Amino acid sequence: MDKFKVAVLGATGLVGQRFVKLLSDHPFFEVAALTASSRSAGKRYCEATKWMLGSGFPEAVRDMKVLESSPEAVKGCGYNIDIVFSALPSSTARELEPAFASSGFNVVTNASALRMFDDIPLIVPEVNSNHMKLIEHQRRRRGWRGLIVTNPNCSTCILTLTLKPIMDVAGIEAVHVTTLQAVSGAGFSGVTSMAILDNAIPFIANEEEKMQTETLKILGTLEGETIKQADISVSASCNRVCVLDGHLECVFLKTRRPVSPEEVKEALKSFKGLPQELKLPLAPTSPVIVKDEVDRPQPRLDRDEGKGMSVVVGRLRSGRDGWLKYVVLGNNVVRGAAGNAILIGEVMAKSWLSD
Amino acid sequence: MDKFKVAVLGATGLVGQRFVKLLSDHPFFEVAALTASSRSAGKRYCEATKWMLGSGFPEAVRDMKVLESSPEAVKGCGYNIDIVFSALPSSTARELEPAFASSGFNVVTNASALRMFDDIPLIVPEVNSNHMKLIEHQRRRRGWRGLIVTNPNCSTCILTLTLKPIMDVAGIEAVHVTTLQAVSGAGFSGVTSMAILDNAIPFIANEEEKMQTETLKILGTLEGETIKQADISVSASCNRVCVLDGHLECVFLKTRRPVSPEEVKEALKSFKGLPQELKLPLAPTSPVIVKDEVDRPQPRLDRDEGKGMSVVVGRLRSGRDGWLKYVVLGNNVVRGAAGNAILIGEVMAKSWLSD
Amino acid sequence: MDKFKVAVLGATGLVGQRFVKLLSDHPFFEVAALTASSRSAGKRYCEATKWMLGSGFPEAVRDMKVLESSPEAVKGCGYNIDIVFSALPSSTARELEPAFASSGFNVVTNASALRMFDDIPLIVPEVNSNHMKLIEHQRRRRGWRGLIVTNPNCSTCILTLTLKPIMDVAGIEAVHVTTLQAVSGAGFSGVTSMAILDNAIPFIANEEEKMQTETLKILGTLEGETIKQADISVSASCNRVCVLDGHLECVFLKTRRPVSPEEVKEALKSFKGLPQELKLPLAPTSPVIVKDEVDRPQPRLDRDEGKGMSVVVGRLRSGRDGWLKYVVLGNNVVRGAAGNAILIGEVMAKSWLSD
Amino acid sequence: MDKFKVAVLGATGLVGQRFVKLLSDHPFFEVAALTASSRSAGKRYCEATKWMLGSGFPEAVRDMKVLESSPEAVKGCGYNIDIVFSALPSSTARELEPAFASSGFNVVTNASALRMFDDIPLIVPEVNSNHMKLIEHQRRRRGWRGLIVTNPNCSTCILTLTLKPIMDVAGIEAVHVTTLQAVSGAGFSGVTSMAILDNAIPFIANEEEKMQTETLKILGTLEGETIKQADISVSASCNRVCVLDGHLECVFLKTRRPVSPEEVKEALKSFKGLPQELKLPLAPTSPVIVKDEVDRPQPRLDRDEGKGMSVVVGRLRSGRDGWLKYVVLGNNVVRGAAGNAILIGEVMAKSWLSD
Repeated sequence: MDKFKVAVLGATGLVGQRFVKLLSDHPFFEVAALTASSRSAGKRYCEATKWMLGSGFPEAVRDMKVLESSPEAVKGCGYNIDIVFSALPSSTARELEPAFASSGFNVVTNASALRMFDDIPLIVPEVNSNHMKLIEHQRRRRGWRGLIVTNPNCSTCILTLTLKPIMDVAGIEAVHVTTLQAVSGAGFSGVTSMAILDNAIPFIANEEEKMQTETLKILGTLEGETIKQADISVSASCNRVCVLDGHLECVFLKTRRPVSPEEVKEALKSFKGLPQELKLPLAPTSPVIVKDEVDRPQPRLDRDEGKGMSVVVGRLRSGRDGWLKYVVLGNNVVRGAAGNAILIGEVMAKSWLSD
Repeated sequence: MDKFKVAVLGATGLVGQRFVKLLSDHPFFEVAALTASSRSAGKRYCEATKWMLGSGFPEAVRDMKVLESSPEAVKGCGYNIDIVFSALPSSTARELEPAFASSGFNVVTNASALRMFDDIPLIVPEVNSNHMKLIEHQRRRRGWRGLIVTNPNCSTCILTLTLKPIMDVAGIEAVHVTTLQAVSGAGFSGVTSMAILDNAIPFIANEEEKMQTETLKILGTLEGETIKQADISVSASCNRVCVLDGHLECVFLKTRRPVSPEEVKEALKSFKGLPQELKLPLAPTSPVIVKDEVDRPQPRLDRDEGKGMSVVVGRLRSGRDGWLKYVVLGNNVVRGAAGNAILIGEVMAKSWLSD
Repeated sequence: MDKFKVAVLGATGLVGQRFVKLLSDHPFFEVAALTASSRSAGKRYCEATKWMLGSGFPEAVRDMKVLESSPEAVKGCGYNIDIVFSALPSSTARELEPAFASSGFNVVTNASALRMFDDIPLIVPEVNSNHMKLIEHQRRRRGWRGLIVTNPNCSTCILTLTLKPIMDVAGIEAVHVTTLQAVSGAGFSGVTSMAILDNAIPFIANEEEKMQTETLKILGTLEGETIKQADISVSASCNRVCVLDGHLECVFLKTRRPVSPEEVKEALKSFKGLPQELKLPLAPTSPVIVKDEVDRPQPRLDRDEGKGMSVVVGRLRSGRDGWLKYVVLGNNVVRGAAGNAILIGEVMAKSWLSD
Repeated sequence: MDKFKVAVLGATGLVGQRFVKLLSDHPFFEVAALTASSRSAGKRYCEATKWMLGSGFPEAVRDMKVLESSPEAVKGCGYNIDIVFSALPSSTARELEPAFASSGFNVVTNASALRMFDDIPLIVPEVNSNHMKLIEHQRRRRGWRGLIVTNPNCSTCILTLTLKPIMDVAGIEAVHVTTLQAVSGAGFSGVTSMAILDNAIPFIANEEEKMQTETLKILGTLEGETIKQADISVSASCNRVCVLDGHLECVFLKTRRPVSPEEVKEALKSFKGLPQELKLPLAPTSPVIVKDEVDRPQPRLDRDEGKGMSVVVGRLRSGRDGWLKYVVLGNNVVRGAAGNAILIGEVMAKSWLSD
């Protein structure tokens, strides 16, 4: 087949680079346009980018001219763009992404700005692909020729992949989650070395609010033209730690029905979703891997499981108070950002192919 | 006054060094004997020790001859030893410390081996100094001329300093605590660099069990010759992070009576105990310091508050489910180990002076 | 005596904070004015500053109103300012510091902008206090009522403290120096965590040039109204490493006359300068400490020797080619920045007192 | 073709694991035996090993029974072993490896014990494959049916790959090299976290001696039955830094004939050796990659170039004294250890195939 042409907005930042890397040699997609701030526009991609992902700069886009982040510029790229992947900062995304959708572009975005709007799907493909149906309503209501689908907050995305199978098997009443988050979550310059060396920081702006609200939408039920939020009490405490990539989350969880750690383990291990069914390129064989070693998961050792698309669970046990306890690790830049967004794109592309 | 003569058992390890440092120039105590394993016995202290605490090796003990860790060796040191501070490993402590007590020594120990025995006090001086009364019973029952008092696990010691004032003001039903613990908690060679660089480890052997049991004893009530454990459900999830000193603990806490974060804050700030009343040398003015900055406490910036004897609380807030949330930091090698043990010794010394 | 009144320019940055901390409770000096960029001007110092130096925020200046960094603003502070210590960025310093000097202020600056001008002294007090005589010429030539004295680059300052005694005893023909520099050298936000975790960077902008030129001026000879540069070939290779404070420098050095490591060791250990003679407050007893342990100096263990004002030398040995080899460590934020500048100020103050 | 059967001695350690990983799916070799200390012998490889290399445990050897490290045990493995790769500690290797050679095994070893013996080749395949001819002499002299070839010290291996092309183009008179070495060079437990966090250590036992002697043998000339050492003065200063993998070396180098950085750059970039000629499986296209970015090479960004088999050079420039300066980075666990040893094995295997 001819590959779908895609654009990456905000392609020079850390998440943008991850998009570009994951899209190079992708079986469905071909990068046809890259955008950045006006400071970088006009430069070759390799000049405009301080490449942070080690060896393997993607040759195909080395000399691609960086465009401004505007619908007009992307339209002028010479290709018909099927999907626009956005790694724009949230402040910019708020105005720009609707402009792109209004101009006819299909936008899948990692920005937080629009996630909680009623008619905008917030998707973890294994968990709630059916929420994509909101798009029809969205386009009708907003009069858009294009559309916007959003990718959740990194910690939330990782967490919900474990909550969904537990909810299905036993219901969930409450979650207390404490995160240990990697510095890459804040972007290349987000955390200075003097702040984090020999240190940990028990605060990440807006992170707890995102985990506490986005989780309920993702696990919610599609009812007509809206999502009925899940009836779960989620409370988060978020920390930054001295790790490059990989968010670790310590979960205390109260189910609605009694359930043994063994049942939960079985539910996590056997969990599959639409991406596995469709055998999508970025879909990991197991979205949730459960490790039995007493000291896992660990960020450096486990963040590349399933090429960064699997989350890894360990230390599944029961507390004396009947709450379940476990630890989950996810790759914040792959599953928690660019990878999940591309997986959303793959779901869309597959639906076009089967139409 | 003449200073009390003290010995430090296991003086060459990381906790032992911290004992020696805190005891140098101490107004009550003078180090008269240092012990270590037989490999080091006979050497001068400065030769036997790979000093890890930066500049300021204590000159007074530089040339002191290291003794074997036996009651006989310490008896032969030429001084009448008033208190023996023990930094022995738990495996060794189990046999040796009772032998010291039986030989007439007053032992204050950081080892975990004997903490949970019914007749052995487990003390955080601001919280439960009254439990020291168990000693009479202990000596009678065991026929010891000496005695043993124990110092809690580092994370537990830090946690209970915040639980006590909250319990007093509103009662506590349940605690979910997730720790981010420094590598020094495992001793000098406990965590290899390849294990922890760019990483975090969601497991510390026996740590969760210690937090879940020791907390209940410390917050328990002295009833006759025994401690009635506190009726609190404590559940812990412990992690090692890439920090040198300072344990950070993220607490979710359910009180028995409704209470506002402001009331709790007031209770924490105004909390004082016996050490403050007696104006003991290592007693910090405020055992619990509350910070209002949104991103505090942080290990590197706050671990030296109160010379490492204060714990620092921040991010006090209420979750939607009515549980309180806060973060507490304590210096694991000072308040969580040698410092708390010496403070126990100061309580004992003060009682002798007032007799 | 009444203390001399001093101002700190650029007081909210990392070096500025270090100035403020070292000047609090200083026997000669009292902070009477603090300046920062216009964004901070008008705020209280504690509000304008994200304090990075752990516990111990200096109470005396907590509520001092931050001024703009202009001669007029400082003049309006209500005190007669005897010395202005400048922690301004180099770009700003280039214009502003001459303006201050022209307005009558005595400026001691850590900025690099003016270091290499013929009539501006570049001072390490133990090494070349006699170069301060350039000031007369400077004031005459520039028509200033005030003056400017400069503090060297951090790595250079540390290096020259070891070169001076060796030069005196055996002459120096050539130096090859490779540095391992701490992140604090680049300021609070200078090195992002993603750049340096699990990494090292073999480049620091302009650092090698500074070491190669400033060294020759500092070790040069005052001849009339000018400095004759030392005839030494200095070649540097500078690296950033994952250390908070403390620059380590590996030196290969060719003397003019044959000399044994023992002689050099003796020369380093017995080295003293004017600050020691005058017993100045920040003068360390030994400007150069020599350690015999095979694996020292180390940044974390040795950076606080002499309260950060001593440099620590180790591994002194001869290579097969007759070049000497040694390693020197210095505290880049104290001896390499604020501390050395204040020591210069102390030399000036002492001369006024003895006039 | 049928693959050659190989054994790995000391297969459970960090270098041993790297051997096993690089040998899995190798086109020439198949792992037929794994050995470890008697404590591990008898266990399955996956049980005996704390796998440190992230995801991707090699499935083919998961259940292989670990043997004792003795010729008898390896003989009893049921296969005819063509090459024995040794990751034994040096102390054990000294006795055991000659025993293996004497029993008829062809040993390629990473241990240092035998490197400097006259009749034992010390090989970097791109640099001195011709030294393999010493083997004939070795076997005759020692009466061995087998043989021993040694792999150099990690830092030396990396350095010589850059010295060889420079020597060829301009001769080398002297080298001053300062290393910044990763913790993995000391094995999994070699550097404790408390020693290296926020720190650097200017000493690695025996490392400087190895660099100063092994370099001369590798760059030496085969003359009859012996190697005439290169006439170069090499002086080293070795440091441990807080990096997981990748040794950085800052080189000052004096050539015999004047040469411009451009000529040297050309020589480095065009350098090829026997492995490239033979297109061996682990041979990188370019053994030496030269980067033009001003701040490269960096360990984390560049250590995987050529799958860890290329060294990366940057900052090539001339000092004022006419010495060349550059920085070279190599992957200490691949090119500096297991990878180079396997490349030696590939040279041997290729020669057998062409016989």
